[in-house]
Amino acid sequence: MTRPNHGGNLTWAANIAGCPTSSIIDFSASINPWGIPQTVVTAIEEDIPRLTAYPNPEYPRLRNCLAKDCNVGADYVLPGNGSAELLTWAAKDLLQQEETYLIAPAFGDYYRALRAFGAKINVLTSKLPFGDLDTLIPDRLPCNSGLLLNNPHNPTGKLWQKAEIIPYLSKFALVIIDEAFMDFLRPSQQQSLIDLVPDFPNLVILRSLTKFYSIPGLRIGYAVTYPHRIQQWQQYRDPWSVNSLAATAAITAIKDRDFQQDTWNWLATARESLFQGLKAISGLQPLPGAVNFLLVRSEISVTLLQEKLLQQYQILIRDCLSFPELGDRYFRIAVRTPQENQLLLKAIESVINK
Amino acid sequence: MTRPNHGGNLTWAANIAGCPTSSIIDFSASINPWGIPQTVVTAIEEDIPRLTAYPNPEYPRLRNCLAKDCNVGADYVLPGNGSAELLTWAAKDLLQQEETYLIAPAFGDYYRALRAFGAKINVLTSKLPFGDLDTLIPDRLPCNSGLLLNNPHNPTGKLWQKAEIIPYLSKFALVIIDEAFMDFLRPSQQQSLIDLVPDFPNLVILRSLTKFYSIPGLRIGYAVTYPHRIQQWQQYRDPWSVNSLAATAAITAIKDRDFQQDTWNWLATARESLFQGLKAISGLQPLPGAVNFLLVRSEISVTLLQEKLLQQYQILIRDCLSFPELGDRYFRIAVRTPQENQLLLKAIESVINK
Repeated sequence: MTRPNHGGNLTWAANIAGCPTSSIIDFSASINPWGIPQTVVTAIEEDIPRLTAYPNPEYPRLRNCLAKDCNVGADYVLPGNGSAELLTWAAKDLLQQEETYLIAPAFGDYYRALRAFGAKINVLTSKLPFGDLDTLIPDRLPCNSGLLLNNPHNPTGKLWQKAEIIPYLSKFALVIIDEAFMDFLRPSQQQSLIDLVPDFPNLVILRSLTKFYSIPGLRIGYAVTYPHRIQQWQQYRDPWSVNSLAATAAITAIKDRDFQQDTWNWLATARESLFQGLKAISGLQPLPGAVNFLLVRSEISVTLLQEKLLQQYQILIRDCLSFPELGDRYFRIAVRTPQENQLLLKAIESVINK
Repeated sequence: MTRPNHGGNLTWAANIAGCPTSSIIDFSASINPWGIPQTVVTAIEEDIPRLTAYPNPEYPRLRNCLAKDCNVGADYVLPGNGSAELLTWAAKDLLQQEETYLIAPAFGDYYRALRAFGAKINVLTSKLPFGDLDTLIPDRLPCNSGLLLNNPHNPTGKLWQKAEIIPYLSKFALVIIDEAFMDFLRPSQQQSLIDLVPDFPNLVILRSLTKFYSIPGLRIGYAVTYPHRIQQWQQYRDPWSVNSLAATAAITAIKDRDFQQDTWNWLATARESLFQGLKAISGLQPLPGAVNFLLVRSEISVTLLQEKLLQQYQILIRDCLSFPELGDRYFRIAVRTPQENQLLLKAIESVINK
């Protein structure tokens, strides 16, 4: 079986671990470990009989809910079949730019989307941990350049400040900001540029709902951008791209304030404790991370570590072989429950010290 | 509210009828009226807890099941987020042809998909009902032409024979056959070209599972074509395009032989009886249809008929204003349960004779 390019491939992991997929403790996909909110489970169950009807291609209820949550008009919001679908259409628009700047290591699907339409990619990189944006993006840019920025950044966990991104909205002809993990930050700490969308027709924000609400199997994300671009994307894609259960789940999830508070409360403590635990293990250097995952530099081979963790503990960590800038000396782990994080720390320690 | 371009928009209909969407009897979307198979409902319910995991981008279980059902190798099958998603990628490939031939009236989404990538469209048409393919497709074609053929054809219900399609596989550089309604025919009556795919690298078959199994809200279809094209399409789109519940539903649905038999048994009788009933109404001429819908020519204005059916009977029929070749003198109706079909016939009669 080929090594997967993304986290969360449990079939591959179970094959190495020699156990059923359900026995794997998955630190490789950066998903909220508290599972699907009960409100969402109930809403999905109740909606199954309505699958006999097509979704309304305008998704009016969902768009109104998301728009209210984002404090923009409903015509500024487009739900997608996961934010990954919307990335495809963003990439189609980026093709019209002379080149697209991308900070690497970058989420592998960015390359897929940009290459699907033949966009020219200009990779920006620097040593880790990343510093401010102006240490990464050159001062002088060709006219008609695009920027595809991931904030918070995956896989490093770096959060750039809103104030340092704003100047680039005037320098780039098209700016796509993938904020797939932004909702893991408390609202007071978020650095989203959603509120600037009405002022910048060249700005697109991509958001995911599957990571925070633990429904990656259901596929739901959204874009916030100018209405003319949303209408354009609706012409690119088929009319019923978002399945009805995903629409229902999203409407219910964004209203579940208790689940949101519980997640924010858990994450602050759990991440700090996991970070300290990793730092205390000889040969490991975790990078500071703003959201629900940590990138870790390792002095021993990560493929070896990954294999042993699977075989001995049914624990799956995300190797970084698919990121050419990282290779075999980095791994990424999701922050999970305190008990699972302890289990991971002990398992890594035992593998390294054997 | 704008008049929708597709059937099944219950929000629009309920607004005119002045009733909740759940009260509308929907003859506008060509969906199996017997609802979701119980086996599928159960499978979906059981799978909800597993939404916390990403789908496996290779969808191995689903591809194996579909491949077995189609009697081809699993690498010849690609599931999609509804066949509508796969149509988008087919259209991207058709762009490489000098022009694409399309028989009109045609499913509106074909134009959307072809225009999304700028393919040049050559519309073929003739008076209704359609005759054989050679009365529609010219003898001499420019080299590098594409054909996008819908068989059985929507909205006319025409079924072309396999034998008359085969010669065109050598005349066109790329042939996409949308067989979205083929499964409503008994296997012995189907005219599918799936079994020819291994012999023709320029052939793509698109299939839907949402119409027969009554799950349009869930989105699931598949393509059967050469592995090199499937790999290409996997690069066009994001890795998790099919949601996990749709994958589970499909695996379960295609094994439900009882549901399939029941559907075929109902349809043969119900369609014939509906056809005769329509024919008996003065001013209406139904066209012979091979599957689960009928196109009907009407001497009175269809928008008027549609409005009155909604307001007086909460019955929604599909007007044909979105098909420029048909306009206000045609409507399309799904074949529904015998009771509902009788209700429709009586309602139409009362509106027309008032």
